[in-house]
Amino acid sequence: MRRDHAFADLFAPDGCLDAAAFAQSLIRCPSVTPRDEGALDLLQSVLESLGFSCHRLPFDAPGTARVDNLFARLGCGAPHMCFAGHTDVVPVGHPDSWQVDPFGGLIEDGVLMGRGAADMKGAIAAFVAAVSGFLAAHKGGFDGSISFLITGDEEGPAINGTVKVLEWMAANGHIPDMCLVGEPTNPSRLGEMVKIGRRGSFNARLAVCGHQGHVAYPHLADNPIPGLVRLLEALGRDQLDQGTAHFQPSNLEITNIEVGNPATNVIPGKAEAAFNIRFNDLHTGDSLEHWVRTRLDAVGVPYDLDITVSGDAFLTPPGPFSDAIAGAIEARLGEPPALSTTGGTSDARFIKNYCPVAEFGLVGATMHKANECVSLADLAALRDIYGDILDRLLA
Amino acid sequence: MRRDHAFADLFAPDGCLDAAAFAQSLIRCPSVTPRDEGALDLLQSVLESLGFSCHRLPFDAPGTARVDNLFARLGCGAPHMCFAGHTDVVPVGHPDSWQVDPFGGLIEDGVLMGRGAADMKGAIAAFVAAVSGFLAAHKGGFDGSISFLITGDEEGPAINGTVKVLEWMAANGHIPDMCLVGEPTNPSRLGEMVKIGRRGSFNARLAVCGHQGHVAYPHLADNPIPGLVRLLEALGRDQLDQGTAHFQPSNLEITNIEVGNPATNVIPGKAEAAFNIRFNDLHTGDSLEHWVRTRLDAVGVPYDLDITVSGDAFLTPPGPFSDAIAGAIEARLGEPPALSTTGGTSDARFIKNYCPVAEFGLVGATMHKANECVSLADLAALRDIYGDILDRLLA
Repeated sequence: MRRDHAFADLFAPDGCLDAAAFAQSLIRCPSVTPRDEGALDLLQSVLESLGFSCHRLPFDAPGTARVDNLFARLGCGAPHMCFAGHTDVVPVGHPDSWQVDPFGGLIEDGVLMGRGAADMKGAIAAFVAAVSGFLAAHKGGFDGSISFLITGDEEGPAINGTVKVLEWMAANGHIPDMCLVGEPTNPSRLGEMVKIGRRGSFNARLAVCGHQGHVAYPHLADNPIPGLVRLLEALGRDQLDQGTAHFQPSNLEITNIEVGNPATNVIPGKAEAAFNIRFNDLHTGDSLEHWVRTRLDAVGVPYDLDITVSGDAFLTPPGPFSDAIAGAIEARLGEPPALSTTGGTSDARFIKNYCPVAEFGLVGATMHKANECVSLADLAALRDIYGDILDRLLA
Repeated sequence: MRRDHAFADLFAPDGCLDAAAFAQSLIRCPSVTPRDEGALDLLQSVLESLGFSCHRLPFDAPGTARVDNLFARLGCGAPHMCFAGHTDVVPVGHPDSWQVDPFGGLIEDGVLMGRGAADMKGAIAAFVAAVSGFLAAHKGGFDGSISFLITGDEEGPAINGTVKVLEWMAANGHIPDMCLVGEPTNPSRLGEMVKIGRRGSFNARLAVCGHQGHVAYPHLADNPIPGLVRLLEALGRDQLDQGTAHFQPSNLEITNIEVGNPATNVIPGKAEAAFNIRFNDLHTGDSLEHWVRTRLDAVGVPYDLDITVSGDAFLTPPGPFSDAIAGAIEARLGEPPALSTTGGTSDARFIKNYCPVAEFGLVGATMHKANECVSLADLAALRDIYGDILDRLLA
């Protein structure tokens, strides 16, 4: 009963979806990865009411949790614009650090509070509300088609989510012409930043083996630490690049060194370090491995190197798609956004293999923190901006 | 009853102490630091039977275990020669790695097995047997006096042992003219090495503080690892010295680096390293701190340094005392020993503050290991060598 009542309450008297009420209802589903808790059902029922054809796409793999996903499309023409996002959220953390129920969806003083408000149930609600308004304004039809690629595995291992939905979309003729990801891209103020690319992320473990012994008899041991220090010193000597027109300089950070020898009279047998490179589109995982090995080999200390590249850099060069997004933002808020490639990774790293992709959403200041929230004013503005983007690209 | 029977069995038909039987009885006292288990009582009863005046000197201190010690002296004249050692032993380790009862004192195929056989109940037994023979051969008296400084805290924190006994000896007019420590100084063959000094040991913890953050936003963080790497690289650049006539070169070993950051996307907030310097008599703890700080300061990275000097270097220059030891070894075994300052620390580091000190004992190959043992031939040869040393210095 509560569900039906809530569903009717999601729509304003003019029949259009109320972004704040819908975001509130999504927050009330405690969908901490990999749990769904009704979030996708709720989204599907709203999209179906707007005429979307919905496909639930649960995936699993050995050693991973089964994850539910949703692909929904309205129309089948071109241009095909896709909105991508996720209904899963990160854990609450320590409940005592919240001033409200993290899954209560309390609205107070013009602010909607709860886990996922900014990242990114608010953006999903804004986009569906924008589509609802767009359809009401274009009852006679519109050019192209609109789709939703929604995963429940963005905050988790990202194995049974966007990657596999994209494979399904490719196999079923649903690859879009452009994709807008609703991640919270604005550091502190709505409209300040659109992401048109992301740096890649290169992780490595570097190990040097020696031979354990007593510090009083160093000739009977082989200390791996000085060699590791020289290797790390060599890695830090050169800059990777000076940055590009759209990317900041690539950056290497040594994130850890572990020897694990608490005995002050023992020379350890092994020393390991970890480092991460956030790299721009001047590099690939392969070219970075070459860059790293060239510098390590020059030191002359034998080493082991384990590499994991969790995403290559990508760029959607400024053009009609980013112009539409930037134009809608400037029209609504009075200032054009920065077109940026800074920050961490998102599922856009997978989507860029299929079509141009950009990211624009809410303000990220409270995401992943206690008392995550979004102002209703921002939510309304984002709905308007998303609606204007649809107008500029599809009307 | 067993004790009395065992006591009579310790003496050979000629009335002299049997080194093997006495070492066996000492091994049967499971005196793992700080426990005594009757070892000092047994030693005291034998020494009293030889005419020694015995003083039991138990000490304790806040936060440490109470430890029993023994000072015994025969005669009051000069020269006063002291034999120093310990009846405590290191733990057994994993009992399954022993082929025999570690505290059984089994003698088989000419080998006495058990914890403490080499380090250093065997040497104590050899020295008491040598004194027993020396007294039998000099019934009319001898020049000088003989003493024993025996602690139960050499393998432990060394707080309530030799240091405090020496203070008591100084306060009571018992400072010797020379001291022979019975540590197992021979790496593989009896007679190959006498220790006439030891290097000092300097321990330091080096910490660099930064500011934690996300690897994607390095400008908001301050990674302490590159600074620590540069400091460690600077410490490894220069040799401390080239060694001296009696000492090998001083040596610095980085023993540990700990960052404790398992997250590959996090820049850590702190990085720490530990290093140890084994140093010769060209240095003191203070001069080393200056050497270290000069090199660290030159790097220009702020750091914290915590220093512990657990013993300065010392040398008893070759002279009449070492001549007597080396002469006795060559006379018995046909080859002169090396006069060395290599290896780890011992209680000689405390004794050197009061009188010339040298170290000579059994073969150390099995010490601190499973199946610790000593050959009866070595035990008899060591008794003879100790006896000849007494002849050369006191007869």
